[in-house]
Amino acid sequence: MNFQNRPLSANATPTLDDVRDAAARIAGIACVTPVLRSHSLDALAGCSLFFKAENLQRAGAFKFRGATNAVFSLDATQAARGVVTQSSGNHGAAMALVCQLRGIPCTVVVPTTAPRIKRAAIARHGARIVDCDVAQSARDEATARVLAETGGELVHSFNDARVIAGQGTATLELLLQAEYHDGSRTALDVVMAPLSGGGLMSGTCIAAKGIDARISTIAAEPEGARDGHDSLKSGVRISGRPTNTISDGLRAELGPITFAILREHCDDVLLVSDAETLAAMRLVWERLKLVIEPSAAVPLAAVLKHRSRFAGQRVGIILSGGNVDLDALPALLALASTDAA
Amino acid sequence: MNFQNRPLSANATPTLDDVRDAAARIAGIACVTPVLRSHSLDALAGCSLFFKAENLQRAGAFKFRGATNAVFSLDATQAARGVVTQSSGNHGAAMALVCQLRGIPCTVVVPTTAPRIKRAAIARHGARIVDCDVAQSARDEATARVLAETGGELVHSFNDARVIAGQGTATLELLLQAEYHDGSRTALDVVMAPLSGGGLMSGTCIAAKGIDARISTIAAEPEGARDGHDSLKSGVRISGRPTNTISDGLRAELGPITFAILREHCDDVLLVSDAETLAAMRLVWERLKLVIEPSAAVPLAAVLKHRSRFAGQRVGIILSGGNVDLDALPALLALASTDAA
Repeated sequence: MNFQNRPLSANATPTLDDVRDAAARIAGIACVTPVLRSHSLDALAGCSLFFKAENLQRAGAFKFRGATNAVFSLDATQAARGVVTQSSGNHGAAMALVCQLRGIPCTVVVPTTAPRIKRAAIARHGARIVDCDVAQSARDEATARVLAETGGELVHSFNDARVIAGQGTATLELLLQAEYHDGSRTALDVVMAPLSGGGLMSGTCIAAKGIDARISTIAAEPEGARDGHDSLKSGVRISGRPTNTISDGLRAELGPITFAILREHCDDVLLVSDAETLAAMRLVWERLKLVIEPSAAVPLAAVLKHRSRFAGQRVGIILSGGNVDLDALPALLALASTDAA
Repeated sequence: MNFQNRPLSANATPTLDDVRDAAARIAGIACVTPVLRSHSLDALAGCSLFFKAENLQRAGAFKFRGATNAVFSLDATQAARGVVTQSSGNHGAAMALVCQLRGIPCTVVVPTTAPRIKRAAIARHGARIVDCDVAQSARDEATARVLAETGGELVHSFNDARVIAGQGTATLELLLQAEYHDGSRTALDVVMAPLSGGGLMSGTCIAAKGIDARISTIAAEPEGARDGHDSLKSGVRISGRPTNTISDGLRAELGPITFAILREHCDDVLLVSDAETLAAMRLVWERLKLVIEPSAAVPLAAVLKHRSRFAGQRVGIILSGGNVDLDALPALLALASTDAA
């Protein structure tokens, strides 16, 4: 492999070349996930939807891409000391799995409020779990303590250039696959992803705008965790605001790196209610036959809420993950009536 | 397209060449569905599993393959009179969709007991629904009446060579994709599919044995609808026996054509309980992130029940469909405890 501009430091601003390097680095470790289409969802939305099924990614979410790029970027000395991260869910499971694959130690600082299924996935891949209170200060303290103890490398779940570059690889694949799907030579008109800490959306923007600046990059965020929207509209990064959303993967706040990238490259942020998210989730289950978690349904909910805006366009949507607790599902489905869609 | 040996009459015995013709005929209409793998399911099963995701096929099930091959085999005169079929579910939806695509009339005779979601799918694609009692005699009477009225072509859901050849295309793809997946030059050791009327399993056997006679062809059937198992073990085709299983797609009985094919080419039939099926279904939802219906989980249930038999082998499984009624799901999930797996 011939990497253009490595090594990428954690706090750099990644470029399209870094995303391409990441694609080469994770090849054969991460999956090239399929892009799926649905005539009935296209009819419902009034546009052409291309769903990048990252719920089928290893460890069940796009997070495996960034984790793999970060962990396989480490030199042997760094790697031997292991890595440390904070996560309430998918990033932790992805880090645990990729460290298991590389054969290095992994410690995940997990708030006690993390969903049972996501905690179980971290443990299944042999990572050490350090419990902490949900407050960001408590999580930071616990992380600093583990870093001091182990001398390990911090891999932040989104505010890390290596992670962002890895997440961007989903969009590299999506643009290629969308073209293949219907023989069109036109790039997608829009690429969408859910917005939380901004790692996925930053990688998405860097890849999409780098390849064709005319592609619209639109994030979708729950009303009950709209700090990203408000930060980008006001130009001031908001932190410490409480969240209230069923999308448990979208409760983080932008970091300094992702905020800067999104201010430059993210064209808009659309907000949706939890009811809209659950109705969209149910549609994906029913029409695409894919198990996705609520967070992954937020962009489709935004498209269905703003039909006129997307009319006739070719819209790529990153279905971010599928790690939903099946025991909690009946309650979610009861909330998501088909009528709401 | 250059078809080797067409036209294939409905009551012929299809060959590998007919399956290859079908693959050419349905190309660009049906999807090439992905083959998915799961390290954790492989570990659980003690073998290498290759899941052919026919739940992602158009109309949500493998049935679209056979329906497309049959409908696009008709000449213009036949086609103009339309087609008639009996179905309690996936075959009816597939026929409705493919007739809509070809622009010809479709009538589906549907028993009043058919699941709501499957009935809705038939109606969504513009087919005419004729209701009838669930007894086979009532279904046959209604079908004969419609055929007499319309002069249409009967396309039986499984006892039809054109349908069987179409279903075999899933296995053609699976064998190619399994090889691609891990670079192995070894064909699969085993191919498995659920057994109901035997259309899918017959096509599976013809394709697999035709390509490599060493491939084991193993059907899986619910205990509560074991007529296929008992027919093949006794050599006498059983009919008219009541069924009792949650797998609503697997309640049909073998027909004369499928019985003859399976007697020659199907190596074994394994039986599973509904509890085993539901536990396997839940595992597919959780680990593969795919929405499948209970019928589709029966082969995986059989592998997990007979681990030693499959130890270390490369096993292809056709996940037959994903048309589960999400409103009925909480009850299904409650039945399928994680512990049962």
